[in-house]
Amino acid sequence: MVQYPQPLDSSFSALSDGTRRGILERLRRGNASISDLADSFGMTLTGIKKHVRILEDAELVQTEKVGRVRTCSLGARRLEREKAWIAQHQQMVEDRFDRLDDFLRNS
Amino acid sequence: MVQYPQPLDSSFSALSDGTRRGILERLRRGNASISDLADSFGMTLTGIKKHVRILEDAELVQTEKVGRVRTCSLGARRLEREKAWIAQHQQMVEDRFDRLDDFLRNS
Repeated sequence: MVQYPQPLDSSFSALSDGTRRGILERLRRGNASISDLADSFGMTLTGIKKHVRILEDAELVQTEKVGRVRTCSLGARRLEREKAWIAQHQQMVEDRFDRLDDFLRNS
Repeated sequence: MVQYPQPLDSSFSALSDGTRRGILERLRRGNASISDLADSFGMTLTGIKKHVRILEDAELVQTEKVGRVRTCSLGARRLEREKAWIAQHQQMVEDRFDRLDDFLRNS
């Protein structure tokens, strides 16, 4: 049985929630504290912290605590492998459907 | 609070498991029955069925039952929006780091 890289698990899993994608979209515009994010998304601090923790584990977000304020910013993860996996999938799906198309046209 | 499209939830969630990505990679090479997949991945039929069901719900796989055999093939989902989301994220992350770089260079 082939082993598949675990990092893709954590990133795709992190991206599978609308609030987490929303947090990333928010952080593209600039850093934000946990409280800012809780306000923006109408969630409790505890709820937002859980989402941020998942994004941190996937290296999509990094946080720094100064005094009582934890500031979130975009992490180092570039999602290159994730995009490459999807692009390869698309290409192979297209190829399969093209071959099926040729087969149906010529039969 | 902004509403985010649910379809991205189901596709990214489906892609967040190595066995499910493996099933898609296997199906790119040709259709396979549930038993074929169970053999390939060293899993029980029940275990594979659960993964296939999640892939089916995300429209990444379609299945057809003829007699007692359920055959799996690639679904209609092209993952265009998923790739676009990631590409947009990468672009904006790059832009932010470029701006930070300029700022640090000029300060």
